[in-house]
Amino acid sequence: MASESKESPSNNPGLHAAASSPDEATKGYFMQQTMFRIKDPKLSLDFYSRVLGMSLLKRLDFPEMKFSLYFMGYEDPTAAPADPTDRTRWTFGQKATIELTHNWGTESDPEFKGYHNGNSEPRGFGHIGITVDDTYKACERFERLGVEFVKKPDDGKMKGIAFIKDPDGYWIEIFDVKTIGSVTAGAA
Amino acid sequence: MASESKESPSNNPGLHAAASSPDEATKGYFMQQTMFRIKDPKLSLDFYSRVLGMSLLKRLDFPEMKFSLYFMGYEDPTAAPADPTDRTRWTFGQKATIELTHNWGTESDPEFKGYHNGNSEPRGFGHIGITVDDTYKACERFERLGVEFVKKPDDGKMKGIAFIKDPDGYWIEIFDVKTIGSVTAGAA
Repeated sequence: MASESKESPSNNPGLHAAASSPDEATKGYFMQQTMFRIKDPKLSLDFYSRVLGMSLLKRLDFPEMKFSLYFMGYEDPTAAPADPTDRTRWTFGQKATIELTHNWGTESDPEFKGYHNGNSEPRGFGHIGITVDDTYKACERFERLGVEFVKKPDDGKMKGIAFIKDPDGYWIEIFDVKTIGSVTAGAA
Repeated sequence: MASESKESPSNNPGLHAAASSPDEATKGYFMQQTMFRIKDPKLSLDFYSRVLGMSLLKRLDFPEMKFSLYFMGYEDPTAAPADPTDRTRWTFGQKATIELTHNWGTESDPEFKGYHNGNSEPRGFGHIGITVDDTYKACERFERLGVEFVKKPDDGKMKGIAFIKDPDGYWIEIFDVKTIGSVTAGAA
Protein backbone atom coordinates (compact mmCIF):
# COMPACT_ATOMS: atom_id res chain seq x y z
CA MET A 1 0.00 0.00 0.00
CA ALA A 2 1.48 3.34 -0.93
CA SER A 3 2.09 5.71 1.93
CA GLU A 4 -0.21 8.67 1.98
CA SER A 5 1.19 12.17 2.16
CA LYS A 6 0.68 14.23 5.29
CA GLU A 7 -1.62 16.42 3.20
CA SER A 8 -4.01 13.65 2.14
CA PRO A 9 -7.67 13.87 3.20
CA SER A 10 -7.31 10.76 5.34
CA ASN A 11 -4.82 12.66 7.52
CA ASN A 12 -6.83 15.88 7.61
CA PRO A 13 -10.40 15.64 8.90
CA GLY A 14 -12.68 18.00 7.01
CA LEU A 15 -10.51 18.18 3.91
CA HIS A 16 -12.06 17.34 0.56
CA ALA A 17 -9.72 16.34 -2.23
CA ALA A 18 -10.24 18.51 -5.28
CA ALA A 19 -9.71 15.52 -7.54
CA SER A 20 -12.54 13.53 -5.98
CA SER A 21 -14.96 16.44 -5.57
CA PRO A 22 -18.19 15.99 -7.52
CA ASP A 23 -18.61 19.75 -7.72
CA GLU A 24 -16.90 21.52 -10.61
CA ALA A 25 -18.45 24.83 -9.64
CA THR A 26 -15.23 26.24 -8.25
CA LYS A 27 -13.17 25.78 -11.41
CA GLY A 28 -11.59 29.06 -12.39
CA TYR A 29 -11.71 30.52 -8.87
CA PHE A 30 -8.52 32.25 -7.76
CA MET A 31 -7.22 34.22 -4.81
CA GLN A 32 -7.24 37.79 -6.02
CA GLN A 33 -6.77 40.13 -3.08
CA THR A 34 -5.92 40.69 0.56
CA MET A 35 -7.42 43.88 1.95
CA PHE A 36 -6.21 45.92 4.87
CA ARG A 37 -6.73 49.51 5.91
CA ILE A 38 -3.97 52.11 5.80
CA LYS A 39 -3.62 55.48 7.48
CA ASP A 40 -1.65 57.39 4.84
CA PRO A 41 -1.40 56.37 1.18
CA LYS A 42 1.70 58.51 0.66
CA LEU A 43 3.62 56.36 3.14
CA SER A 44 2.11 53.06 2.01
CA LEU A 45 2.54 53.68 -1.71
CA ASP A 46 6.17 54.60 -1.07
CA PHE A 47 6.75 51.48 1.02
CA TYR A 48 5.06 48.97 -1.25
CA SER A 49 6.54 50.40 -4.46
CA ARG A 50 10.03 51.53 -3.45
CA VAL A 51 10.82 48.98 -0.73
CA LEU A 52 8.87 45.93 -1.93
CA GLY A 53 8.81 46.62 -5.68
CA MET A 54 5.06 46.47 -6.24
CA SER A 55 3.18 48.64 -8.72
CA LEU A 56 -0.10 50.48 -8.41
CA LEU A 57 -2.31 48.35 -10.62
CA LYS A 58 -5.52 50.28 -10.05
CA ARG A 59 -6.92 53.03 -7.88
CA LEU A 60 -10.63 53.37 -7.20
CA ASP A 61 -12.06 56.49 -5.53
CA PHE A 62 -15.42 56.69 -3.78
CA PRO A 63 -15.92 60.39 -2.98
CA GLU A 64 -19.44 59.95 -1.59
CA MET A 65 -18.18 57.44 0.94
CA LYS A 66 -14.83 59.21 1.31
CA PHE A 67 -12.47 56.34 0.69
CA SER A 68 -10.03 55.13 -1.94
CA LEU A 69 -8.71 51.68 -2.80
CA TYR A 70 -5.17 51.09 -4.00
CA PHE A 71 -4.54 47.72 -5.62
CA MET A 72 -0.84 46.89 -5.48
CA GLY A 73 0.88 43.90 -7.02
CA TYR A 74 3.76 42.45 -8.93
CA GLU A 75 2.08 42.47 -12.33
CA ASP A 76 3.49 44.75 -15.01
CA PRO A 77 1.28 47.86 -15.04
CA THR A 78 2.37 48.72 -18.58
CA ALA A 79 0.30 45.69 -19.61
CA ALA A 80 -2.84 47.33 -18.19
CA PRO A 81 -5.48 48.68 -20.58
CA ALA A 82 -5.69 52.48 -20.93
CA ASP A 83 -9.43 52.67 -20.38
CA PRO A 84 -10.07 53.06 -16.63
CA THR A 85 -12.92 50.55 -16.44
CA ASP A 86 -11.03 48.00 -18.51
CA ARG A 87 -8.11 48.54 -16.16
CA THR A 88 -10.35 47.62 -13.22
CA ARG A 89 -11.37 44.40 -14.98
CA TRP A 90 -7.73 43.65 -15.77
CA THR A 91 -6.74 44.18 -12.13
CA PHE A 92 -9.45 41.87 -10.84
CA GLY A 93 -8.16 39.28 -13.28
CA GLN A 94 -4.75 39.22 -11.54
CA LYS A 95 -3.83 36.92 -8.67
CA ALA A 96 -2.29 37.93 -5.38
CA THR A 97 -2.83 41.66 -5.18
CA ILE A 98 -3.06 43.65 -2.00
CA GLU A 99 -5.90 46.11 -1.63
CA LEU A 100 -5.03 49.08 0.57
CA THR A 101 -8.13 50.90 1.83
CA HIS A 102 -7.70 54.55 2.70
CA ASN A 103 -10.51 56.22 4.60
CA TRP A 104 -9.93 59.87 3.77
CA GLY A 105 -8.63 62.07 6.54
CA THR A 106 -6.92 59.52 8.78
CA GLU A 107 -3.50 60.72 7.59
CA SER A 108 -4.04 64.16 9.13
CA ASP A 109 -6.37 63.34 12.02
CA PRO A 110 -4.62 63.81 15.39
CA GLU A 111 -7.36 61.72 17.02
CA PHE A 112 -6.76 58.73 14.76
CA LYS A 113 -5.10 55.98 16.76
CA GLY A 114 -3.93 53.83 13.85
CA TYR A 115 -4.93 50.36 12.70
CA HIS A 116 -4.63 47.03 14.49
CA ASN A 117 -2.23 44.50 12.97
CA GLY A 118 -3.90 41.42 14.43
CA ASN A 119 -0.88 40.12 16.33
CA SER A 120 -1.85 41.39 19.76
CA GLU A 121 -5.26 40.93 21.38
CA PRO A 122 -7.72 40.65 19.80
CA ARG A 123 -5.78 38.44 17.43
CA GLY A 124 -6.84 37.22 14.01
CA PHE A 125 -5.02 38.21 10.83
CA GLY A 126 -1.28 37.69 11.13
CA HIS A 127 0.71 38.82 8.12
CA ILE A 128 1.26 38.70 4.41
CA GLY A 129 4.34 36.94 3.08
CA ILE A 130 6.64 37.78 0.19
CA THR A 131 8.92 35.24 -1.45
CA VAL A 132 12.21 36.97 -2.29
CA ASP A 133 15.29 35.78 -4.13
CA ASP A 134 17.50 35.77 -1.02
CA THR A 135 16.25 36.62 2.48
CA TYR A 136 19.62 37.85 3.81
CA LYS A 137 20.31 40.04 0.78
CA ALA A 138 16.76 41.43 0.86
CA CYS A 139 17.01 42.18 4.58
CA GLU A 140 20.34 43.96 4.23
CA ARG A 141 18.66 46.24 1.73
CA PHE A 142 15.62 46.72 4.00
CA GLU A 143 17.99 47.73 6.81
CA ARG A 144 19.71 50.27 4.57
CA LEU A 145 16.28 51.65 3.68
CA GLY A 146 15.38 52.05 7.35
CA VAL A 147 12.63 49.41 7.40
CA GLU A 148 11.49 48.33 10.86
CA PHE A 149 12.00 44.65 11.72
CA VAL A 150 9.88 42.40 13.92
CA LYS A 151 12.45 39.62 13.47
CA LYS A 152 15.75 39.76 11.62
CA PRO A 153 16.69 36.62 9.69
CA ASP A 154 19.15 35.39 12.33
CA ASP A 155 16.96 36.15 15.35
CA GLY A 156 15.34 33.21 17.13
CA LYS A 157 15.25 29.62 15.96
CA MET A 158 13.94 30.13 12.45
CA LYS A 159 17.12 31.27 10.72
CA GLY A 160 16.59 32.67 7.26
CA ILE A 161 13.06 33.91 7.89
CA ALA A 162 12.39 37.56 8.69
CA PHE A 163 9.43 39.74 9.57
CA ILE A 164 9.28 43.43 8.72
CA LYS A 165 6.63 46.06 9.40
CA ASP A 166 4.82 48.20 6.88
CA PRO A 167 4.04 51.88 7.70
CA ASP A 168 0.86 50.90 9.59
CA GLY A 169 2.62 48.21 11.58
CA TYR A 170 1.28 45.23 9.62
CA TRP A 171 3.71 42.34 9.59
CA ILE A 172 5.27 41.07 6.35
CA GLU A 173 7.11 37.76 6.37
CA ILE A 174 10.20 37.55 4.16
CA PHE A 175 11.57 34.18 3.03
CA ASP A 176 13.15 32.48 0.06
CA VAL A 177 12.55 29.13 -1.55
CA LYS A 178 16.19 28.06 -1.13
CA THR A 179 16.16 28.14 2.68
CA ILE A 180 12.50 27.66 3.65
CA GLY A 181 12.68 23.92 3.14
CA SER A 182 15.61 23.28 5.46
CA VAL A 183 14.52 25.67 8.20
CA THR A 184 11.10 24.03 8.44
CA ALA A 185 12.26 20.47 7.69
CA GLY A 186 11.36 19.25 11.17
CA ALA A 187 7.80 20.42 10.68
CA ALA A 188 7.33 19.05 7.16
CA MET B 1 0.82 66.01 -24.10
CA ALA B 2 -0.52 62.56 -23.38
CA SER B 3 -2.92 62.36 -20.49
CA GLU B 4 -1.55 60.49 -17.53
CA SER B 5 -3.47 57.61 -16.03
CA LYS B 6 -4.97 57.96 -12.56
CA GLU B 7 -2.38 55.42 -11.42
CA SER B 8 0.68 57.40 -12.57
CA PRO B 9 3.22 58.52 -9.92
CA SER B 10 2.41 62.16 -10.62
CA ASN B 11 -1.13 61.54 -9.38
CA ASN B 12 -0.06 59.45 -6.39
CA PRO B 13 2.35 61.05 -3.93
CA GLY B 14 4.79 58.53 -2.54
CA LEU B 15 4.47 56.11 -5.47
CA HIS B 16 7.63 55.06 -7.29
CA ALA B 17 7.24 53.74 -10.79
CA ALA B 18 8.81 50.33 -11.15
CA ALA B 19 10.02 51.20 -14.63
CA SER B 20 12.01 54.20 -13.41
CA SER B 21 13.31 52.60 -10.23
CA PRO B 22 17.09 52.36 -10.07
CA ASP B 23 16.84 49.37 -7.77
CA GLU B 24 16.52 45.96 -9.38
CA ALA B 25 16.72 44.26 -6.00
CA THR B 26 13.04 43.42 -5.91
CA LYS B 27 12.96 41.49 -9.19
CA GLY B 28 11.49 38.07 -8.62
CA TYR B 29 9.60 39.05 -5.47
CA PHE B 30 6.03 37.80 -5.33
CA MET B 31 3.09 37.80 -2.95
CA GLN B 32 3.05 34.28 -1.57
CA GLN B 33 0.74 34.15 1.45
CA THR B 34 -1.88 35.72 3.63
CA MET B 35 -1.89 34.35 7.17
CA PHE B 36 -4.76 34.29 9.62
CA ARG B 37 -5.50 32.21 12.67
CA ILE B 38 -8.25 29.60 12.79
CA LYS B 39 -10.02 27.93 15.68
CA ASP B 40 -10.72 24.50 14.19
CA PRO B 41 -8.92 23.04 11.16
CA LYS B 42 -11.67 20.51 10.57
CA LEU B 43 -14.15 23.32 9.87
CA SER B 44 -11.71 25.48 7.94
CA LEU B 45 -10.32 22.68 5.77
CA ASP B 46 -13.88 21.69 4.90
CA PHE B 47 -14.84 25.26 4.05
CA TYR B 48 -11.81 26.18 1.97
CA SER B 49 -11.72 22.86 0.09
CA ARG B 50 -15.39 21.95 -0.36
CA VAL B 51 -16.95 25.42 -0.58
CA LEU B 52 -14.14 27.44 -2.17
CA GLY B 53 -12.35 24.68 -4.08
CA MET B 54 -8.86 25.12 -2.64
CA SER B 55 -6.42 22.30 -1.96
CA LEU B 56 -4.14 21.67 0.99
CA LEU B 57 -0.77 22.40 -0.56
CA LYS B 58 1.29 21.83 2.55
CA ARG B 59 0.90 21.24 6.27
CA LEU B 60 3.64 22.07 8.75
CA ASP B 61 3.43 20.91 12.37
CA PHE B 62 5.36 22.42 15.25
CA PRO B 63 4.72 20.11 18.24
CA GLU B 64 7.07 21.96 20.59
CA MET B 65 5.18 25.20 20.05
CA LYS B 66 1.84 23.42 19.68
CA PHE B 67 0.69 24.83 16.37
CA SER B 68 0.18 23.74 12.78
CA LEU B 69 0.13 25.67 9.52
CA TYR B 70 -2.18 24.76 6.64
CA PHE B 71 -1.28 26.30 3.29
CA MET B 72 -4.33 26.35 1.03
CA GLY B 73 -4.46 27.44 -2.58
CA TYR B 74 -5.67 26.88 -6.10
CA GLU B 75 -2.55 25.14 -7.37
CA ASP B 76 -2.81 21.50 -8.38
CA PRO B 77 -1.51 19.46 -5.43
CA THR B 78 -0.82 16.48 -7.67
CA ALA B 79 2.01 18.61 -9.09
CA ALA B 80 3.64 18.77 -5.65
CA PRO B 81 6.83 16.76 -5.03
CA ALA B 82 6.47 13.63 -2.86
CA ASP B 83 9.33 14.51 -0.52
CA PRO B 84 7.92 16.56 2.38
CA THR B 85 10.70 19.16 2.42
CA ASP B 86 10.60 19.56 -1.35
CA ARG B 87 6.86 20.02 -1.02
CA THR B 88 7.46 22.90 1.38
CA ARG B 89 9.80 24.54 -1.12
CA TRP B 90 7.25 23.99 -3.89
CA THR B 91 4.51 25.56 -1.79
CA PHE B 92 6.57 28.64 -1.03
CA GLY B 93 7.18 28.95 -4.75
CA GLN B 94 3.43 29.41 -5.40
CA LYS B 95 1.64 32.75 -5.45
CA ALA B 96 -1.48 33.65 -3.55
CA THR B 97 -1.82 30.97 -0.92
CA ILE B 98 -3.58 31.36 2.37
CA GLU B 99 -1.81 30.19 5.50
CA LEU B 100 -4.19 29.02 8.23
CA THR B 101 -2.54 28.95 11.64
CA HIS B 102 -4.02 26.55 14.17
CA ASN B 103 -2.90 26.91 17.77
CA TRP B 104 -3.63 23.46 19.15
CA GLY B 105 -6.53 23.14 21.52
CA THR B 106 -8.63 26.17 20.56
CA GLU B 107 -11.14 23.89 18.82
CA SER B 108 -12.10 22.24 22.11
CA ASP B 109 -11.42 25.05 24.60
CA PRO B 110 -14.68 26.35 26.09
CA GLU B 111 -12.81 29.49 27.23
CA PHE B 112 -11.63 30.35 23.73
CA LYS B 113 -13.52 33.40 22.50
CA GLY B 114 -12.65 33.12 18.81
CA TYR B 115 -10.59 35.29 16.51
CA HIS B 116 -11.12 38.91 15.50
CA ASN B 117 -11.91 39.52 11.83
CA GLY B 118 -10.67 43.12 11.73
CA ASN B 119 -13.95 44.69 10.63
CA SER B 120 -15.07 45.93 14.03
CA GLU B 121 -12.92 47.89 16.45
CA PRO B 122 -10.00 47.62 16.55
CA ARG B 123 -10.04 47.57 12.75
CA GLY B 124 -7.19 46.68 10.41
CA PHE B 125 -7.33 43.64 8.12
CA GLY B 126 -10.55 43.54 6.12
CA HIS B 127 -10.93 40.49 3.92
CA ILE B 128 -9.53 38.25 1.26
CA GLY B 129 -11.15 38.27 -2.18
CA ILE B 130 -11.81 35.46 -4.62
CA THR B 131 -12.45 36.02 -8.30
CA VAL B 132 -15.13 33.59 -9.44
CA ASP B 133 -16.62 32.86 -12.84
CA ASP B 134 -20.03 34.31 -12.01
CA THR B 135 -20.88 35.96 -8.68
CA TYR B 136 -24.61 35.18 -8.79
CA LYS B 137 -24.09 31.56 -9.73
CA ALA B 138 -21.39 31.16 -7.08
CA CYS B 139 -23.60 32.76 -4.43
CA GLU B 140 -26.57 30.55 -5.24
CA ARG B 141 -24.31 27.59 -4.60
CA PHE B 142 -22.97 29.13 -1.37
CA GLU B 143 -26.56 29.59 -0.19
CA ARG B 144 -27.36 25.95 -0.94
CA LEU B 145 -24.27 24.97 1.07
CA GLY B 146 -25.41 27.05 4.03
CA VAL B 147 -22.62 29.64 3.88
CA GLU B 148 -23.19 32.76 5.96
CA PHE B 149 -23.36 36.03 4.03
CA VAL B 150 -22.27 39.50 5.13
CA LYS B 151 -23.70 40.91 1.89
CA LYS B 152 -25.59 39.12 -0.84
CA PRO B 153 -24.85 40.22 -4.39
CA ASP B 154 -28.02 42.30 -4.70
CA ASP B 155 -27.80 43.92 -1.26
CA GLY B 156 -26.81 47.58 -1.13
CA LYS B 157 -25.48 49.70 -3.96
CA MET B 158 -22.71 47.44 -5.18
CA LYS B 159 -24.74 44.93 -7.17
CA GLY B 160 -22.82 41.87 -8.23
CA ILE B 161 -20.37 41.91 -5.32
CA ALA B 162 -20.88 39.67 -2.30
CA PHE B 163 -19.21 39.03 1.02
CA ILE B 164 -19.35 35.68 2.77
CA LYS B 165 -17.91 34.52 6.10
CA ASP B 166 -15.53 31.68 6.73
CA PRO B 167 -15.95 29.45 9.83
CA ASP B 168 -14.04 31.93 12.02
CA GLY B 169 -16.04 34.90 10.76
CA TYR B 170 -13.36 36.28 8.43
CA TRP B 171 -14.85 38.08 5.45
CA ILE B 172 -14.32 36.84 1.89
CA GLU B 173 -15.29 39.09 -1.00
CA ILE B 174 -16.75 37.36 -4.05
CA PHE B 175 -16.74 39.05 -7.46
CA ASP B 176 -16.28 38.31 -11.12
CA VAL B 177 -14.34 40.08 -13.85
CA LYS B 178 -17.46 40.51 -16.04
CA THR B 179 -19.35 42.72 -13.59
CA ILE B 180 -16.63 44.35 -11.45
CA GLY B 181 -15.84 46.92 -14.11
CA SER B 182 -19.36 48.26 -14.50
CA VAL B 183 -20.25 48.23 -10.80
CA THR B 184 -17.16 50.30 -9.93
CA ALA B 185 -17.13 52.41 -13.12
CA GLY B 186 -17.89 55.60 -11.24
CA ALA B 187 -14.84 55.03 -9.07
CA ALA B 188 -12.43 54.09 -11.84
